[in-house]
Amino acid sequence: MSEDLAMGCKVWLVPDGYLPSCEPGDLVSHESICVLNTGTEKAHCKLDVFFEDRDPLLDIPFQVEAQRTCHLRLDRPDMLGGIELPRDVPYATRVMSDVPVVVQSSRLDVTQPNLALFTTMAFPCP
Amino acid sequence: MSEDLAMGCKVWLVPDGYLPSCEPGDLVSHESICVLNTGTEKAHCKLDVFFEDRDPLLDIPFQVEAQRTCHLRLDRPDMLGGIELPRDVPYATRVMSDVPVVVQSSRLDVTQPNLALFTTMAFPCP
Amino acid sequence: MSEDLAMGCKVWLVPDGYLPSCEPGDLVSHESICVLNTGTEKAHCKLDVFFEDRDPLLDIPFQVEAQRTCHLRLDRPDMLGGIELPRDVPYATRVMSDVPVVVQSSRLDVTQPNLALFTTMAFPCP
Amino acid sequence: MSEDLAMGCKVWLVPDGYLPSCEPGDLVSHESICVLNTGTEKAHCKLDVFFEDRDPLLDIPFQVEAQRTCHLRLDRPDMLGGIELPRDVPYATRVMSDVPVVVQSSRLDVTQPNLALFTTMAFPCP
Repeated sequence: MSEDLAMGCKVWLVPDGYLPSCEPGDLVSHESICVLNTGTEKAHCKLDVFFEDRDPLLDIPFQVEAQRTCHLRLDRPDMLGGIELPRDVPYATRVMSDVPVVVQSSRLDVTQPNLALFTTMAFPCP
Repeated sequence: MSEDLAMGCKVWLVPDGYLPSCEPGDLVSHESICVLNTGTEKAHCKLDVFFEDRDPLLDIPFQVEAQRTCHLRLDRPDMLGGIELPRDVPYATRVMSDVPVVVQSSRLDVTQPNLALFTTMAFPCP
Repeated sequence: MSEDLAMGCKVWLVPDGYLPSCEPGDLVSHESICVLNTGTEKAHCKLDVFFEDRDPLLDIPFQVEAQRTCHLRLDRPDMLGGIELPRDVPYATRVMSDVPVVVQSSRLDVTQPNLALFTTMAFPCP
Repeated sequence: MSEDLAMGCKVWLVPDGYLPSCEPGDLVSHESICVLNTGTEKAHCKLDVFFEDRDPLLDIPFQVEAQRTCHLRLDRPDMLGGIELPRDVPYATRVMSDVPVVVQSSRLDVTQPNLALFTTMAFPCP
């Protein structure tokens, strides 16, 4: 099938990453890296995580099927090849894909009794 | 009239879509796809919705009059040609227009007693 | 002085505008159009407001001095040449400047007892 | 080492800056300028702060090591060369780096008992 339905870029960056401490409750503070693959080929992606004071974690693999979205939960080791990201530590992320995709980053914070949300499109690197 | 007042792009993408479960109360959790048509021609738009594990819903039609905005509520089937999007399911959206428009995506979450908001400009595809 | 310190664009668009109903309290729900003028010339700006079902309000003037920022409160008629924008009505905005500036749009919502915030960079039109 | 791993731009702008008044509690209202340096050279950065009614504060230095992120807290004079930004005053910021970086701006507001968050990618200046 043609690949020309794939929209977006192959590299995306998010400087503000943070997983607040886990509180008991129905909701869990987390971040999601949301990837949209509008194309007809599966996207083979890699996630890099950069820190303030240690070497980055590179090449964590994940996939997004053709014409599908994937909301990658950064607090779930089962979605990150077993890697558990530290909480209460500033980090930044990069997504690299073999086909064009679009990436958005969101955080749900339930540090206090009521949730807070934020989101931004990631920064595309042509 | 001239069409050269139309600003923006014809294709826009939003990877992070989600309708939280509906709670009783004055406010209803929802997302809005906000479209601005600054031009002098009516914009004929189509909304596509992509999921993690099923085929996309394609070509849901809506219109934005010339020099008007439309804040399309994704929780209201009457604005989506009768289609009811599922709650508690990650999705992503794409808007395609026949004239240039600008698209922004926002969410109001009232899962907990106090509302949370987020917004981002959609990603334009030239 | 040289004008080449001016950074950004001359036209910016924000599809999601909304002033929630005013509640009594210390804080007032509002939106701000935040403009940064890094240049050495005063920026003469005009604000346009688009609605869903009526003609736009065009050419509301405001200024941003050289090397200054202006956080324009959309709920304050004294900053909009006496114009009072309606509450509980979806709208969209456009800023046009005679020199390059950068524009960001933010909302503070105190509909419920605890405030919610959102922000996004406006969409630049080259 | 090669410098071609550095992604992003050298100048970034954020029109909406604000430090809400400080309340007693575990959390402190603040803004963070989050910088990601994916390259192999240290980034030497300067922060400029613009106001509505006074001259800007220019050239506040900070650094981001190679392949590291820095989440610069704008409420902490120890991270700003001793400079204490005023609270309850609108401002805007600019980051200039000698190598390409990516910049995101976020605010945590605890004016009221429950926190609110917002974020946006800064605007890049090519």
